[in-house]
Amino acid sequence: MARIISHTLLLAATASKALASCAYGTHLFPREEAADGTPVVKVNTFGYAGTIGPLNWVALDATANTACATGTRQSPIDMVDGVFQMVAASDLSIDIPDMAEGTEFENLGTTVEVIAKGGTMNVANTTYTLQQFHFHLPSEHLDNGTSMAMEMHMVWQSEAQEIAVIGVYIDVDPQSAAPAGNATVARRQLPEGVQGMGKTAALAVTPADSVLLETVFSSIDQIVEPGTFTETQPLVMSELVSLLNAGSFQSYSGSLTTPPCSEGVTWLVSTQHLMVQTATFQSVRDVIGFNSRYPQNTPGEPNLLQLATTAATA
Amino acid sequence: MARIISHTLLLAATASKALASCAYGTHLFPREEAADGTPVVKVNTFGYAGTIGPLNWVALDATANTACATGTRQSPIDMVDGVFQMVAASDLSIDIPDMAEGTEFENLGTTVEVIAKGGTMNVANTTYTLQQFHFHLPSEHLDNGTSMAMEMHMVWQSEAQEIAVIGVYIDVDPQSAAPAGNATVARRQLPEGVQGMGKTAALAVTPADSVLLETVFSSIDQIVEPGTFTETQPLVMSELVSLLNAGSFQSYSGSLTTPPCSEGVTWLVSTQHLMVQTATFQSVRDVIGFNSRYPQNTPGEPNLLQLATTAATA
Repeated sequence: MARIISHTLLLAATASKALASCAYGTHLFPREEAADGTPVVKVNTFGYAGTIGPLNWVALDATANTACATGTRQSPIDMVDGVFQMVAASDLSIDIPDMAEGTEFENLGTTVEVIAKGGTMNVANTTYTLQQFHFHLPSEHLDNGTSMAMEMHMVWQSEAQEIAVIGVYIDVDPQSAAPAGNATVARRQLPEGVQGMGKTAALAVTPADSVLLETVFSSIDQIVEPGTFTETQPLVMSELVSLLNAGSFQSYSGSLTTPPCSEGVTWLVSTQHLMVQTATFQSVRDVIGFNSRYPQNTPGEPNLLQLATTAATA
Repeated sequence: MARIISHTLLLAATASKALASCAYGTHLFPREEAADGTPVVKVNTFGYAGTIGPLNWVALDATANTACATGTRQSPIDMVDGVFQMVAASDLSIDIPDMAEGTEFENLGTTVEVIAKGGTMNVANTTYTLQQFHFHLPSEHLDNGTSMAMEMHMVWQSEAQEIAVIGVYIDVDPQSAAPAGNATVARRQLPEGVQGMGKTAALAVTPADSVLLETVFSSIDQIVEPGTFTETQPLVMSELVSLLNAGSFQSYSGSLTTPPCSEGVTWLVSTQHLMVQTATFQSVRDVIGFNSRYPQNTPGEPNLLQLATTAATA
């Protein structure tokens, strides 16, 4: 199914509550059918260093991105005691179907993103549908002061257009298997359920590694250039759901971590971590480079850029 | 030799060119003898998130830290073509003696730091002496857009009190050995030169790993608390010097990456990378957490905080 991924800045002018790459696939940024049936992946125009970096996002569009510089509930934050509430996984009833035929994996320039094909969860009696999941490197939230190797953001939307994001820290596996050819390589088959789904591959991973992430990232070398996409192998989501359900979630009300930094986003940061092989991490890093917004102020406190402005004009 | 590490904020008022942890051990922040002979490690009061984080450093001391918010040659930066000049390693004549009796390894709260015992290099006909080296996680400079696992900063000072810093990216070893007990563990002895120096230990590392860093970090669990210190095992510096001499340096004129963000710092970022075991990296991360200033604007361009202020008051 071919789709055009709507360009953030074009739509920002027409959406009353503008949302960027964090909200791709929501009704505000729907994927459209291309006239010739060819998917077109539009590349984001913001960045993570210099004048297109996080301190200057508001200057890229002073109207749409005003929350980036003035919002008082901005994300990411340092997840320390007192800024979040614990939510039991059982309260969310997370359900994500496997994707037997794989799905689209896109390079948006600012991140790499996997398009979801359904999935539901309930937050405070509201049902949310999974739209996509993408990656940040290093992690955007700090895990009680600690920077993690990566962070996965699973973006969900309710019928009333509310946004919830599940954040999952990704770490490198200290028991990473040696490269292929070495006798110590451990090979792990995809779970039984997915083996009949289509093409599968044995992965050189340990039992601690995420088969979902290793499978997704095994295609990263096909989307090295911003604006490109590929089809993943079959994706087993049940392993991820089981992992998330075995932990709980640190929840707070924050924002998108990308322009336009819209607030009212329900954050659910998992206490469970995902693990990838060191070599896998490095292959992803070769493509993403760096896409982490600096830690924001404690929710409810002044925006750090407003504090800086006050200090400068005092 | 017991020493008191001078407290940044106390000295900032008296030093005409105030320098913080990036310059500990220089004449501006000399280590003093404690009355009872006990070393006292003073903990820094700035931080990396919220109101004590990088966007607000100027507010911690508006006089001393003004360069943090207004300087136009601030560090770190994204090391892309055009912002640096290449310097041949042979031009620097780096010489660092081994430390046969080990040295002090301190936790300053904002970083962990190894006190040097000599070492010289020449930059533009000026001789610099190595004072200390400390660590940032993740890397502060971006390697052509890419965030690295860590960055080592080797701080040097000339007689005229000029500061030069060698930056070396540290990466995790994709061939990390499995934990002890596994048959695949590779054990590597310290280089011959240091084996007679004193207590030594076999390290479970691959040939790619830095014996210097593995040796230093093998003591990290002894300085978990800010303000504590320990003595390292004997340190072989020759391996590091050989590695640096086998590459070259990306040089630019920048600043300290910590308050007071003083400019006029000669940066020399090595093209050579150091490697540590994944488990070693994680043990260091458990102590450091996160201590990376956000990427600054291209040298010579306006300070990003001044751009943000302009945008906010436009």
